[in-house]
Amino acid sequence: MRFDSRPVILAGACIAGKRESEGPLGKTFDATQDDTTFGEKTWEKSESRLQKDTLALLCNKAGLTPDRVDLICAGDLLNQCIGTSYGLRDCARPILGLYGACATMAAGLSVAAMAVDGGYASNAAALTSSHYCASERQYRLPLEYGGQRAPTAQWTVTGAGACMVSDAKAEGLPRIARATFGKIVDAGVTDPAHMGGAMAPAAYETLRMHWEDTGTSPDDYDFIVTGDLGGVGRDVLLDLLKRDGLSLSGRYNDCGVMIFDTTKQGVQAGGSGCGCSAVVLCGHILAQMRAGIWQRVLFCGTGALMSPVASLQGESIPGICHAVCLEMN
Amino acid sequence: MRFDSRPVILAGACIAGKRESEGPLGKTFDATQDDTTFGEKTWEKSESRLQKDTLALLCNKAGLTPDRVDLICAGDLLNQCIGTSYGLRDCARPILGLYGACATMAAGLSVAAMAVDGGYASNAAALTSSHYCASERQYRLPLEYGGQRAPTAQWTVTGAGACMVSDAKAEGLPRIARATFGKIVDAGVTDPAHMGGAMAPAAYETLRMHWEDTGTSPDDYDFIVTGDLGGVGRDVLLDLLKRDGLSLSGRYNDCGVMIFDTTKQGVQAGGSGCGCSAVVLCGHILAQMRAGIWQRVLFCGTGALMSPVASLQGESIPGICHAVCLEMN
Repeated sequence: MRFDSRPVILAGACIAGKRESEGPLGKTFDATQDDTTFGEKTWEKSESRLQKDTLALLCNKAGLTPDRVDLICAGDLLNQCIGTSYGLRDCARPILGLYGACATMAAGLSVAAMAVDGGYASNAAALTSSHYCASERQYRLPLEYGGQRAPTAQWTVTGAGACMVSDAKAEGLPRIARATFGKIVDAGVTDPAHMGGAMAPAAYETLRMHWEDTGTSPDDYDFIVTGDLGGVGRDVLLDLLKRDGLSLSGRYNDCGVMIFDTTKQGVQAGGSGCGCSAVVLCGHILAQMRAGIWQRVLFCGTGALMSPVASLQGESIPGICHAVCLEMN
Repeated sequence: MRFDSRPVILAGACIAGKRESEGPLGKTFDATQDDTTFGEKTWEKSESRLQKDTLALLCNKAGLTPDRVDLICAGDLLNQCIGTSYGLRDCARPILGLYGACATMAAGLSVAAMAVDGGYASNAAALTSSHYCASERQYRLPLEYGGQRAPTAQWTVTGAGACMVSDAKAEGLPRIARATFGKIVDAGVTDPAHMGGAMAPAAYETLRMHWEDTGTSPDDYDFIVTGDLGGVGRDVLLDLLKRDGLSLSGRYNDCGVMIFDTTKQGVQAGGSGCGCSAVVLCGHILAQMRAGIWQRVLFCGTGALMSPVASLQGESIPGICHAVCLEMN
């Protein structure tokens, strides 16, 4: 999809938890909090609170009163997306609920860009979140159990990120130029502690498709970022591209690898969760673009579309990846 | 949102289960099956199968090879939307995952219309499903338990429906003229067996907003349909409108009421589930429009955005409603 008007990202906002604040990107988040309950009584309510507070912060940073937001494209990982439903319950703005697992921020950005570029909205927000404790309980084991984690496992980021996509006339801000919605790719990985390997083939497919559709190559981008393959999935993706003779040398990284110090923070293969690519985008990546360091970035959200029920039924893990091209000027 | 080109609904397709085939609209479905497993080993896989088969049928009815479908907007009720992920795993087309509970068909139609009207896709499908047995297990009780159901409870429809929204030049087919994405409305209902009452205030808000935004009134529509408030929620909606002096006399019904004979089929307040409004739209409603009986229909998908976890934490049920205006000529 080509967005001829190239809608502007008027602002990004992100709030993250304690472990994220201790990582290499800790200083790039708008706010962090040591208390991962965020003052709420359950982990699910904590995640809703994250979405609510991030949306309020986004409106503030974008200089918009909430009533000027025409559409909010939002979703999360919790069953029935309750992080979103309860987080946005009181915002009184039109909501489109999304489900794309960790690819949700990329999906939301793409729909928001469609809404603005097509003239259906002046300001459309893309918003998502995840919470380590809510995710562990839902997908894996109760925290109290203290289960050992596989080296390929990823650590769900506690955080929420949001972008305000707008038709406002503004200079010096990143713009959304193009997007490619991905196909579902299932490489047959059945281990839910190996999501990076399950998602990497989807990232490969979408990257190839995006370059082919747009007549571009890796060299046309200052930075290509996936979110979130982690260290293991990142290496699988690079291997797949290498077979085609493609190298992303020096211009590629993965949000799950960037957000934590994987050698010191005990997060195994790196970060994951809808919030991971969201806070890395809304903190670090948009700041690098606004500072003129990167002119063109390919932001690729990757999602593992399984559920615990599907895994228990012996199913493999379908992956998806949506790519969004961001440009300055 | 106004879609100036009014994208055409090239075809609708729907497949339903046994109980649905025995209801008043049984003959309007493209296919029904007495075996509600649809040949699969688990209820979740049955639901995925429904989506897969409905998409294939849709492409067939629309006269399109699958590779001409530029985007599929799809979702369902299962945790992590696995009905969609596994059902569309092999289709090799771009997917946008949605979560809107029973409002998913309306949300999908609206996004598909945006994609086509905005020029981002030539053919975009909206697709959703639900399965009684998978839903009961996930939301309520194991079927084997044989729990008694409250009179306000609704019966999840086993079925899948899909529409192909297109920029094709075609006459005599329904078109998508406008859409209103709804706000989340929470009236404080905490009983998960009373979803109709929880969703009716959201339907009321969206209908009022749609009429106000478009300068229309109930009399401008040949048929206004919600999906799925059931008998109880329908009466709550009519009461709310009556307070404003508005009557929908003779031109209103609810998909949950239409799909079953609520006096004879033992479904309590009527049907529900993403599949309910989807199969009623793709079967009965589109057929009535193509036959020239209704020129303008307001299709209002209503969703209850709670989860069992949220209910167990004492939360009330947030409702949402998206309205889509369909027109002939």
